[in-house]
Amino acid sequence: MPNRTAYFVSDGTGITAETFGNAILAQFEAPVRRIRLPFLDSVDKAHQAIHQINRTAEVEGKRPLVFTTVVNMDVLQVFKHNCKGMLLDMFGTFVEPLETELGLKSNHRVGRFSDASKSQEYNDRIEAINFSLMHDDGQSHKDLQGSDVILVGVSRSGKTPTSLYLAMQHGLKASNYPLIPEDFDRRKLPPALVPHRKKVFGLTIAPERLSEIRNERRPNSRYASLENCRMEVSEAESMMRREGIRWLSTTTKSIEEIATTILQEIQPDRLAY
Amino acid sequence: MPNRTAYFVSDGTGITAETFGNAILAQFEAPVRRIRLPFLDSVDKAHQAIHQINRTAEVEGKRPLVFTTVVNMDVLQVFKHNCKGMLLDMFGTFVEPLETELGLKSNHRVGRFSDASKSQEYNDRIEAINFSLMHDDGQSHKDLQGSDVILVGVSRSGKTPTSLYLAMQHGLKASNYPLIPEDFDRRKLPPALVPHRKKVFGLTIAPERLSEIRNERRPNSRYASLENCRMEVSEAESMMRREGIRWLSTTTKSIEEIATTILQEIQPDRLAY
Repeated sequence: MPNRTAYFVSDGTGITAETFGNAILAQFEAPVRRIRLPFLDSVDKAHQAIHQINRTAEVEGKRPLVFTTVVNMDVLQVFKHNCKGMLLDMFGTFVEPLETELGLKSNHRVGRFSDASKSQEYNDRIEAINFSLMHDDGQSHKDLQGSDVILVGVSRSGKTPTSLYLAMQHGLKASNYPLIPEDFDRRKLPPALVPHRKKVFGLTIAPERLSEIRNERRPNSRYASLENCRMEVSEAESMMRREGIRWLSTTTKSIEEIATTILQEIQPDRLAY
Repeated sequence: MPNRTAYFVSDGTGITAETFGNAILAQFEAPVRRIRLPFLDSVDKAHQAIHQINRTAEVEGKRPLVFTTVVNMDVLQVFKHNCKGMLLDMFGTFVEPLETELGLKSNHRVGRFSDASKSQEYNDRIEAINFSLMHDDGQSHKDLQGSDVILVGVSRSGKTPTSLYLAMQHGLKASNYPLIPEDFDRRKLPPALVPHRKKVFGLTIAPERLSEIRNERRPNSRYASLENCRMEVSEAESMMRREGIRWLSTTTKSIEEIATTILQEIQPDRLAY
């Protein structure tokens, strides 16, 4: 049972405040209830939020943890003077030393995620998501040339979520291409991929885990059987070794870890930050 | 031309370090070159990274900005003693005061994104992504019941990227359901949605912007014509008003802002943090 509440407080979406707070909280075993309070872009809204936080402090008898990325100085002042939570202020802490270092004033711009429609980077991200959806599971061989990354691997090795993550978070056009029994018989990289070898990255997975995942989809099928999974994985790994394709095992890795490794290995030219 | 380099340094994926650093850097107009150095989980790797950073300091004649979320104390010490960059240390700054506040020692656990396969929350996320893909664009009416959120709107109003974002970042099963001319003729919510009204959220968009987006797909089509876009948007908005569906305009909003608003309005029971 959580006996402490953490608030993620922001004048924008609160995504940065949440990332910040969750990263710090992951360092403690304590169970914590988490509440996001986004779009606090006026003194009025700040007072309402503080009312809620102070009420929590009373009810729980412990001061809530308030992770904030508020940049509006008026809103931040209201928090500093009235909030009974423990204020963990990311911008206040780091922006000032950086102003000195850079010899620049900060712009107090609210929300890294606003004014989206004006940004080329944002439009590229949306285009990348659409591209990755259209090139999911080898749906379209056209335009593989336009891909920044092409993921290969047996069915259910993690290609689809990884390519969507690369598109969504990094604006990369990530295709994915399944390796199927035909490819194993031919013992060669699918011909459509050959011209793009430099962008190809392989995902593999432990046969036991693969069989579990496939059994959820098609219980007791030959497709999901451990024997078949062992054969497919072994063939796929031999092929990638033979063809000099870089690859990793997704068995115990998160999408975030897989994507980070791919970015390090492929080093795509276009990489939105 | 960037004349300053920022490094995002982590013993995990570096995603938190990057979020942290980019949020702070967004407060300055200065052009900055950004480099992520992930997986620095040993003293050896730390020394290699520091070599690169110190070299940058020499070449540029300005100390690089080093945003770090390193939790391994040995690695962090190496940075503190040898790195010639400006160290902006998120964990060092906030974890210690929190240890005092909570009366707990921190666990120095590396990587919020590791040990993925063991986590129920992670498996839920992957399931949500697959669910959202299968329920994209009204593909499957089955199982709308299983949705946490159902997005409705005209074609290209932003439903697909938003539902994938909700699935990927929040583990929500987000379906989306297009409003089509048939629905406008009937002047009623599509019958499949009626039982799930509480989970339905509408997206709309300015007809001018919609026409632009559709013209990229199908230039000079009736589908993309401003006249047709005006009609569809007007019909869709009337319907949502009539049916009491909550909605917002995506015209100038980012996926992150749209998703944050939806979470506030729908308040789904399941919400992975």
